[in-house]
Amino acid sequence: MGETHRSGCPINLTLEVLGDRWSLIVIRDVMFGNRRHYRELLNRSEERIASNILADRLKRLVAAGLLARRDDPSHQQKAIYSLTEPAIQLVPLLAHMGAWGRRHTPVTPELAIRAQLLEEGGPPLWEAFMAELRTIHLGAPMRGPSILADLQAAFEAEMVRQGRPDGR
Amino acid sequence: MGETHRSGCPINLTLEVLGDRWSLIVIRDVMFGNRRHYRELLNRSEERIASNILADRLKRLVAAGLLARRDDPSHQQKAIYSLTEPAIQLVPLLAHMGAWGRRHTPVTPELAIRAQLLEEGGPPLWEAFMAELRTIHLGAPMRGPSILADLQAAFEAEMVRQGRPDGR
Repeated sequence: MGETHRSGCPINLTLEVLGDRWSLIVIRDVMFGNRRHYRELLNRSEERIASNILADRLKRLVAAGLLARRDDPSHQQKAIYSLTEPAIQLVPLLAHMGAWGRRHTPVTPELAIRAQLLEEGGPPLWEAFMAELRTIHLGAPMRGPSILADLQAAFEAEMVRQGRPDGR
Repeated sequence: MGETHRSGCPINLTLEVLGDRWSLIVIRDVMFGNRRHYRELLNRSEERIASNILADRLKRLVAAGLLARRDDPSHQQKAIYSLTEPAIQLVPLLAHMGAWGRRHTPVTPELAIRAQLLEEGGPPLWEAFMAELRTIHLGAPMRGPSILADLQAAFEAEMVRQGRPDGR
């Protein structure tokens, strides 16, 4: 890596790679929402990311080696984005971020339920989830139950409980 | 909290509170470097933070409830900054950030040694470190050995090993 870094501190370098907050929001949506195409990432964004910001962050994340972009064989003229191994290893970081947010910020129940399950499941659940992400994004063989399906089911149940069964 | 948030997702809200990367750099320096005054935070910054950015981020972190600012009784006209309980609870997040950085970015040995010890120590060490930070920053009674002293000693030993005994 020939670039200039502000320091060799691992926390600083992690922040340099992850860039601003939108980068992690995009990774979150690819990881937990399994949103793999530009249109899904744009139209289903809870935070209403702007299209120019999304395009820029996707480009940066590919350049930083956190996302891989390839043509989607099932959609002509569409690119599909996949998490790379370094991005998959952000699961514990995102789990801790969610756990901290649940304690110290005004979260909404339906958007916090997955963070709660991840926190309660702890490292064994994170490992199983990372194994599943390797299957989905890297083509590794699947082992064990689907954590993503469990998280999605919990999210949808909480949406119904909150009176928002359409999922928005 | 009457502000507008982009969504109620705990990961988004955590990113909203932590703001840009400089905020976490400042928290890191207060937490691991025990830099409590503006001048120390400015002059000893490995990343050479600009004075206007530092002043702005200190103000924001106080407003967000992550730092507390009070007059330092031992220095006239000087403010001393302390971590709040929510900031102390960022220890696991910062430990994971350091662990990820050690694996996926070009860290320098002397700035990575503390991240390594935090990773190897795992949750029991983080708990002990958080207890110590509560003593230092919140005035809680001290129990057990000083993790901060251990981390600092490991950092200084690594500095000598790397031929930089002056600590810069």
